[in-house]
Amino acid sequence: MPRITSVEVVDVRFPTSLTQDGSDAMNKDGDYSAAYVVLHTDDPALSGYGFTFTIGRGNDLCVAAAAQRAAALPGRSVDELCEDLGGIYRELQSDSQLRWLGPDKGVVHLALAAVMNAVWDLAARRSGVPLWRLLSEMSPEQLVAAADLRYLSDVLTPDQAVALLTRQEAGRKERIEELETTGYPCYTTSAGWLGYSDAKLRRLCEEAVASGYKHVKLKVGANLADDIRRCGIAREVLGPDGHLMIDANQVWDVPEAIEWVKALAQFDPLWIEEPTSPDDILGHAAIRKAVAPIGVATGEHGMNRVLFKQMFQAGAIDYCQLDAARLGSVNEVLAVYLLAACFDVPVCPHAGGVGLCELVQHLAIFDYVAVSGSLDGRVTEYVDHLHEHFVEPCVVRNGSYVLPVAPGYSAEMYTESVETYRFPDGAYWTSRAAEEPQP
Amino acid sequence: MPRITSVEVVDVRFPTSLTQDGSDAMNKDGDYSAAYVVLHTDDPALSGYGFTFTIGRGNDLCVAAAAQRAAALPGRSVDELCEDLGGIYRELQSDSQLRWLGPDKGVVHLALAAVMNAVWDLAARRSGVPLWRLLSEMSPEQLVAAADLRYLSDVLTPDQAVALLTRQEAGRKERIEELETTGYPCYTTSAGWLGYSDAKLRRLCEEAVASGYKHVKLKVGANLADDIRRCGIAREVLGPDGHLMIDANQVWDVPEAIEWVKALAQFDPLWIEEPTSPDDILGHAAIRKAVAPIGVATGEHGMNRVLFKQMFQAGAIDYCQLDAARLGSVNEVLAVYLLAACFDVPVCPHAGGVGLCELVQHLAIFDYVAVSGSLDGRVTEYVDHLHEHFVEPCVVRNGSYVLPVAPGYSAEMYTESVETYRFPDGAYWTSRAAEEPQP
Repeated sequence: MPRITSVEVVDVRFPTSLTQDGSDAMNKDGDYSAAYVVLHTDDPALSGYGFTFTIGRGNDLCVAAAAQRAAALPGRSVDELCEDLGGIYRELQSDSQLRWLGPDKGVVHLALAAVMNAVWDLAARRSGVPLWRLLSEMSPEQLVAAADLRYLSDVLTPDQAVALLTRQEAGRKERIEELETTGYPCYTTSAGWLGYSDAKLRRLCEEAVASGYKHVKLKVGANLADDIRRCGIAREVLGPDGHLMIDANQVWDVPEAIEWVKALAQFDPLWIEEPTSPDDILGHAAIRKAVAPIGVATGEHGMNRVLFKQMFQAGAIDYCQLDAARLGSVNEVLAVYLLAACFDVPVCPHAGGVGLCELVQHLAIFDYVAVSGSLDGRVTEYVDHLHEHFVEPCVVRNGSYVLPVAPGYSAEMYTESVETYRFPDGAYWTSRAAEEPQP
Repeated sequence: MPRITSVEVVDVRFPTSLTQDGSDAMNKDGDYSAAYVVLHTDDPALSGYGFTFTIGRGNDLCVAAAAQRAAALPGRSVDELCEDLGGIYRELQSDSQLRWLGPDKGVVHLALAAVMNAVWDLAARRSGVPLWRLLSEMSPEQLVAAADLRYLSDVLTPDQAVALLTRQEAGRKERIEELETTGYPCYTTSAGWLGYSDAKLRRLCEEAVASGYKHVKLKVGANLADDIRRCGIAREVLGPDGHLMIDANQVWDVPEAIEWVKALAQFDPLWIEEPTSPDDILGHAAIRKAVAPIGVATGEHGMNRVLFKQMFQAGAIDYCQLDAARLGSVNEVLAVYLLAACFDVPVCPHAGGVGLCELVQHLAIFDYVAVSGSLDGRVTEYVDHLHEHFVEPCVVRNGSYVLPVAPGYSAEMYTESVETYRFPDGAYWTSRAAEEPQP
């Protein structure tokens, strides 16, 4: 019976700011980073891998917090952990002293996500199946026991959650077979970073369309004239039937968001993403009402399930873009998928960053198989960078994620990548520090 | 012209869990702690002191984050900083890589509070006045320039904020004179911690009434039968005219909160504090509607101004309990006071902890002098512990805070206290570690 022997947490940072990959109106120079957790066991063939995602400075805070969150794990039986994934989540989450620093938000919550993502990866590896299949083979009662439903019972009780999952139980097998043929639809953000030239934007949009994508997303919000010109290019390449999404990364106040989006309405965007503060539920509701039929999307900074509950209650969003490394791992992600199904809002997870595509493919597949049973309005983000660092990178074909088959949550990084980009003492960073006095 | 020469950040922890001071239904064993910031200048007579408050584990995360936030300060001119307190706040706040870990919430925001509290303390000391007077002598335009109004313009524009402050400008002097005579009213929480016996509860309530308090607050939410018995004792001591407040520290879901509070309605509580998740704006609104005329109070975990904006928009609370060390210092506190005045909701700041009473007295006084101009429904928390560690401790007389006269934000701790309780290497903690294997 294997036990967890030690927990390793590594500060891994990739120098993405050099190429302005990932540049947007709020985040001009992110170095995509991971607080990367490895759960070692006394079975050399069995480890668990997980992470949270940050954009550079402060990744060390998540690393330190993850080490504190995980301090209770060494010595634990892997079987016992994996048989009560709700229990271990609640145990780690409820440390009242760390809770004070949130609760359920910010660094301590990102750290909980990193650790519990590794526990879920471990659970799937132990069962020899990819995470989406582990989840798809759990009973409604098991899923609800794992989900974090605290503070949600005014809209969703555990019994209601079981009923909701039971409704979709019959067709699980057929939907898996369907996705094994078609894959799960995705869209690309790789074309539209704010730091790219018009020529690069046009070329990348053309390549996206040629690769089978029906959706393209552009960053907006820094300069209206630029946005009008760039949206024009993208719409021209996409043609009238393609879907254009725009993303402001929280730069506007509510009145400014409404005005700016109306000025871009001529390009028929499918959604405006992150028009304002991610915390502003009532603000999103006001924007949605004002810019309809353009949809409102948010969620990558959605801090926890209580925020999403209210987004749904207030009718604030058309698309829920939960983040697999910001919410408290699968336990809290489950809760948000259940809430979304309850309110019939499509979930289109946030991805990109480091390894988020690897994670969210599992969640989207599971949603279709066992929760919503629907693909309507659902399309998962895909960004084409940093996959080369992952042992089982996601595969996209014809604008769809191919179902992963390897055991786990696809979260393992190559040891060489981790060693090279470990901050500040990996080979990449030490050689860069030698070149410039201030990296 | 003095400059900041260095920033010192210290992890200070007091072993309050030993006596169950501060125990409640959510936080059973907090060790009240501060991530304590000292801004040294090249003028030996001028330093700035500030902190954020935590309850133990994870205080080190705030210390590390505060050091990162403050990294830009050494070398800066004190005069330039103090002449643009909004500018330095926005500069530190807008680090986009640290912002990703919030935004405006959790560890990185607590750290911003610690650093900017020290900057405000420095500004008041430089002017030779207590902080409340520094603020009370700023013009409406200067106050609005310092306030963080981002994401608020759908309910409060800078022009509206100036108008609101201008309305109260005439009576400032008279209100200061009034408070110099009467002090600012407070209530005590020292009586009602959950870990105290009935006999101790009764004795402390009796002492509170004898000391001139008209309000007493009790912790509830662990066990209904206990709560009924304890509320009965408090009401008996207070008599029918005293005010009893109850505080659940977030333990309930919304339906449970409504049911439990109705069961305690017989004791005529003035407010129910933190009935559920601090993030649940719509949940608080539902509870408020259901338990009226009992008031709903929350805010000590209110993460930022965007949350409070919505609390006011939704009519969710009767009392706003902002926290001086959780909001992003005076800059964001100003914004919440302005919003509260806009919606005519009384602000009754959260205090207790380490040094929060020292801070909030300044804010409450300033609110009466320059923002709301009202004492109606306003009463500031006071908890009688840990004041002995502060160089200029707050003074309470006849149930009111006496106006502080020393320059600054009353945030300086004795060097000996800091050295003794520095974690983990101060004298207290090293000697305790020597006694028990696991401190």
